[in-house]
Amino acid sequence: MIQFQCDYNEGAHPHIIQRLIESNMTQSVGYGEDPYCDEARALIKSACEREDVDVHFLVGGTQTNTTVIAHTLRPYQGVIAATSGHINVHETGAIESTGHKVLAVPTADGKLTAEQIEEVMQAHIHEDGPEHMVQPGMVYLSFPTEIGTIYTVSELEAISTVCKRHSLPLFVDGARLGYGLCSPESDITLPMLAKLTDIFYIGGTKVGALFGEAVVITNEALKKDFRYSIKQHGGMLAKGRLLGIQFATLFTDNLYMNISRHAIDEALRIKATLQAKGIPFLIDSSTNQQFPIFNNEQLASLSTEYLFSIWQVVDKQHTAVRICTSWATQTKNVDQLIAAIEQL
Amino acid sequence: MIQFQCDYNEGAHPHIIQRLIESNMTQSVGYGEDPYCDEARALIKSACEREDVDVHFLVGGTQTNTTVIAHTLRPYQGVIAATSGHINVHETGAIESTGHKVLAVPTADGKLTAEQIEEVMQAHIHEDGPEHMVQPGMVYLSFPTEIGTIYTVSELEAISTVCKRHSLPLFVDGARLGYGLCSPESDITLPMLAKLTDIFYIGGTKVGALFGEAVVITNEALKKDFRYSIKQHGGMLAKGRLLGIQFATLFTDNLYMNISRHAIDEALRIKATLQAKGIPFLIDSSTNQQFPIFNNEQLASLSTEYLFSIWQVVDKQHTAVRICTSWATQTKNVDQLIAAIEQL
Amino acid sequence: MIQFQCDYNEGAHPHIIQRLIESNMTQSVGYGEDPYCDEARALIKSACEREDVDVHFLVGGTQTNTTVIAHTLRPYQGVIAATSGHINVHETGAIESTGHKVLAVPTADGKLTAEQIEEVMQAHIHEDGPEHMVQPGMVYLSFPTEIGTIYTVSELEAISTVCKRHSLPLFVDGARLGYGLCSPESDITLPMLAKLTDIFYIGGTKVGALFGEAVVITNEALKKDFRYSIKQHGGMLAKGRLLGIQFATLFTDNLYMNISRHAIDEALRIKATLQAKGIPFLIDSSTNQQFPIFNNEQLASLSTEYLFSIWQVVDKQHTAVRICTSWATQTKNVDQLIAAIEQL
Amino acid sequence: MIQFQCDYNEGAHPHIIQRLIESNMTQSVGYGEDPYCDEARALIKSACEREDVDVHFLVGGTQTNTTVIAHTLRPYQGVIAATSGHINVHETGAIESTGHKVLAVPTADGKLTAEQIEEVMQAHIHEDGPEHMVQPGMVYLSFPTEIGTIYTVSELEAISTVCKRHSLPLFVDGARLGYGLCSPESDITLPMLAKLTDIFYIGGTKVGALFGEAVVITNEALKKDFRYSIKQHGGMLAKGRLLGIQFATLFTDNLYMNISRHAIDEALRIKATLQAKGIPFLIDSSTNQQFPIFNNEQLASLSTEYLFSIWQVVDKQHTAVRICTSWATQTKNVDQLIAAIEQL
Repeated sequence: MIQFQCDYNEGAHPHIIQRLIESNMTQSVGYGEDPYCDEARALIKSACEREDVDVHFLVGGTQTNTTVIAHTLRPYQGVIAATSGHINVHETGAIESTGHKVLAVPTADGKLTAEQIEEVMQAHIHEDGPEHMVQPGMVYLSFPTEIGTIYTVSELEAISTVCKRHSLPLFVDGARLGYGLCSPESDITLPMLAKLTDIFYIGGTKVGALFGEAVVITNEALKKDFRYSIKQHGGMLAKGRLLGIQFATLFTDNLYMNISRHAIDEALRIKATLQAKGIPFLIDSSTNQQFPIFNNEQLASLSTEYLFSIWQVVDKQHTAVRICTSWATQTKNVDQLIAAIEQL
Repeated sequence: MIQFQCDYNEGAHPHIIQRLIESNMTQSVGYGEDPYCDEARALIKSACEREDVDVHFLVGGTQTNTTVIAHTLRPYQGVIAATSGHINVHETGAIESTGHKVLAVPTADGKLTAEQIEEVMQAHIHEDGPEHMVQPGMVYLSFPTEIGTIYTVSELEAISTVCKRHSLPLFVDGARLGYGLCSPESDITLPMLAKLTDIFYIGGTKVGALFGEAVVITNEALKKDFRYSIKQHGGMLAKGRLLGIQFATLFTDNLYMNISRHAIDEALRIKATLQAKGIPFLIDSSTNQQFPIFNNEQLASLSTEYLFSIWQVVDKQHTAVRICTSWATQTKNVDQLIAAIEQL
Repeated sequence: MIQFQCDYNEGAHPHIIQRLIESNMTQSVGYGEDPYCDEARALIKSACEREDVDVHFLVGGTQTNTTVIAHTLRPYQGVIAATSGHINVHETGAIESTGHKVLAVPTADGKLTAEQIEEVMQAHIHEDGPEHMVQPGMVYLSFPTEIGTIYTVSELEAISTVCKRHSLPLFVDGARLGYGLCSPESDITLPMLAKLTDIFYIGGTKVGALFGEAVVITNEALKKDFRYSIKQHGGMLAKGRLLGIQFATLFTDNLYMNISRHAIDEALRIKATLQAKGIPFLIDSSTNQQFPIFNNEQLASLSTEYLFSIWQVVDKQHTAVRICTSWATQTKNVDQLIAAIEQL
Repeated sequence: MIQFQCDYNEGAHPHIIQRLIESNMTQSVGYGEDPYCDEARALIKSACEREDVDVHFLVGGTQTNTTVIAHTLRPYQGVIAATSGHINVHETGAIESTGHKVLAVPTADGKLTAEQIEEVMQAHIHEDGPEHMVQPGMVYLSFPTEIGTIYTVSELEAISTVCKRHSLPLFVDGARLGYGLCSPESDITLPMLAKLTDIFYIGGTKVGALFGEAVVITNEALKKDFRYSIKQHGGMLAKGRLLGIQFATLFTDNLYMNISRHAIDEALRIKATLQAKGIPFLIDSSTNQQFPIFNNEQLASLSTEYLFSIWQVVDKQHTAVRICTSWATQTKNVDQLIAAIEQL
């Protein structure tokens, strides 16, 4: 079986493995205060074109979301997010476990709009007795979203403006950040993200690393004591150097962007084939996740050799699946899948 | 101004005040272990026609909901509730502050259905990797609902059956219980509630008491250590006897039901007048809360002398308001309001 | 049995009952925004000789401690308290239930010292990797303490100075505040408390009220959104006027201090009798709680007519008990107890 | 500088690195449901000589402690632990962040005794109003302890007996488990731990792995839904196979025990040298952590080439340090340190 069901099927990019081997028996201090982490921090600051940000490394996405949100909010505040946001559906209530409500806003395409955020704020402000309701305290969005859509610069600027107006820190979950930045439809860059958000993270787990997420804090007020929050939420890796080594490698010679682009190229090849074949999509995505709707016969045929995620049963005859590519996707496997689709 | 905006504008029923005066300088032990609480517990068990239930007294509704839900759920579980449920909108995230997600289900009339609960369970069970999502762990519903609707026996039986099938404790918030039981459209009784639910509470704050809610636990598994949960959530009143005195009075000579019926009678007189006048309603309610939709002129006219809650702006010309009666509503005030409505 | 085991055996001072009766059927808005609460707030500000403080009313002590501490701390911070502090032993982990560690410091007499607080801070600051430990975030102390001792002005000033130096908000639990202020050994006044602390509360439950605690916030930074915290922790009483009426009464004509002084007078009469009889004390207290050590025979003899709290088994022959007086203690009952002690 | 300050200075055992390289581009499903994790689970069950246990893999120690304790306790319960226990001092209040108090018991040597646990239980049971206090709900101990001491079989049996009597699950933190099992003074084995505890974990981070802890659940009641708890606490690694690969390697050909024994051998060589030199110890340890007390001159001399942890300033002239060996400690470095000590 060739696996396209997710973007974390393999280990890490060979350059990372190589540096792990080379440094394996070198001694270093723990908890992210080693030279590898320092190197990675410097490289990320440079990529963000900002020297004044704080960079921290955590192990996984749920942990990172929980840590950032719990660090940012006051106890009676909640986080505005799309109903389809990862924190609202796929983190076993980790956000709520730290005491905070997710103020979920339904969206058609997984993307919050500035207008929706403004509406939430207006509704709260004009409530008779707002203290009986959760106070909106920050905004969470994913770039790219959980269903492969992306915010444009103008959309993100509008959101940033609303957030600033209401003193809502803006947090961007970049678990698949590379795949968003490299989308042909994206006009966002890393420096822009660093400019428009208060805190965001650069996903490693799904983009070339064994594991790891790099949190970038741009808002001065959120920097204080962040290491306490990391530790409390179990994200302070004893051998923190492992994170430093991985991110230093990913941000050397543009590796992070290069491998992301590879994933996008392969995804778009699959997309084009599906389109040519007249297969409809649940949603139009320009990133590494594609959501075609197969009929039962098509799905049965492809499922003999390819593993997809079942995403949504559309009707008795049709099912939307998720097909993921990643930095690790092999071109020959995509060639084979494309041939199989063409023969449906 | 005559106030109809809520059902907790006055103090307590005179019988309660009388007993508070009489017992004021009597000494008793604290924390609900006094003879008054014992008396109240016995009377409530009798009214529920069950000797095997546990009865506890807490101070307020948010506190009671929080305590019951935190006591019942495992950390990774959430509570299924209507989107309009009090715990989902008007408790400042108290449920989430104890670590639990409210699994909100949209409803047209504030009432959950057995089918909706079954759907939530099926969706969870059939999830690929259910442990990535909050596990539904109990069901919360309000009787009557926050918008004055009521469940019938057959609806509640169906819900109870679904809950039992999935081992979901069923919790009924009875903040306005008397006003639901006394609705002319209700076929529910207190013994039925005690039979069909795992835990519920009898609201005092809105039905004749200064404050206080009586929790009835029918499910053996939920009884253990409930006093620890009360204390931890700040609900163990030092002078617990105040709660005992109030509930003992309310459950003597059928006072609780008699004063509830008065509120309903007055509400239905107002409703009939509004209907005769052709004024539409946001929702059809047979309880002490009525939700007429006034045009701007009507609202301006009535607002010179009567205080209502603004419930929802329907359009530029119309606003839905909430008119509440209660045990304390004076007939002459209702007469006056009726006359004013008739003259609109 | 005459009960001396605690200071919340009776209802409320007759003046309070009187005002509850008079206002019972008056209508008012809920949640502490009524004229009675406004009146009480004005009276308390005046008693504190500060117009710039915020005053809020909550129902009980555990609830108040939890709300204040959860409102004040960041998630990774803890509260410094005496090991014998109420929050550390008798609140069923309510503080921890909001995510915070009590940083307990052993004391001989229930009183924290400025030196101890400084030591805790130095230990934390000089830790190699302080982020691996809970950060001390505020100081909690009780006035009077749980064992009847009191801080002097100079002690409190020293504590306040250390707290300011380390930006630690100082919170004083005044559940028995009146009984501390009226101790003949106390040189503290209400205005001093308002000057030396960041937040404190004036206990009503144990000092004349049916229930209720008045929180006074002097630190500007802690004022914001406190009503959200009250609501989230279940402390926002629907009929908030009940709290307003009680505190307005207590702060009219110096009632709060007068009834506190009565309790102290009666306690000191008992203390003098015990001393004259040569009965030792577990701790020397000048407040309404006395802790004599009786031998088994003495205890058996007194226990036929008087109820005390068993405080500590000293050895096989001796037991320390707690004898409490209160605003409600009747002089004739104390006369009788004194006679009984004299006849031991 | 040669680093002896902790036992997580290097990467992983070469066998692990080798298997990571070999499997790097193999595809597998995520979240611990891959064949590598299955293999590791089977090997650990076999090493525990119990087929009926559940085995889960988490990333780090604080995360594991938090997850296990939050999964086990009811909201109003606390965990009994030594005051020096890792959860009480070095986890930034992670346990409290999930709502639970650590019921800390002072010890001379870092080891809880059965008698102390019994005392805590008796004190709680005989409390007048136990619901006002945190209910002891489980026992946490570390093997070996944070200061290198170890429990004997008879001590652990006594603890297990007390725990069973009071229905307290017994949880053993085995962050350094190998170094405890291989101590020459230890008579504990892995199957014994699996027999005497309800849940424990086998530390990987400090014993040969890059990271990772293997939780073994022997108590049937604790098995249910543990994966939900892992996910909620951010411990469910996307590429769970990394944990499977590491633990499968460690439990192949007795690698875990062999590398632990190496660390002990080297530690005991250092210990013998220190003893021969007449240097005193803060505590007598037979594990990989040694706590000699150096005078200032000795410490200054050694610190030019060797890095130790400063553990405790004994007096102005003396400081206790921690010297750690590990699976990665090089014999030549120990030889060099021994020579340096001999020349002091």
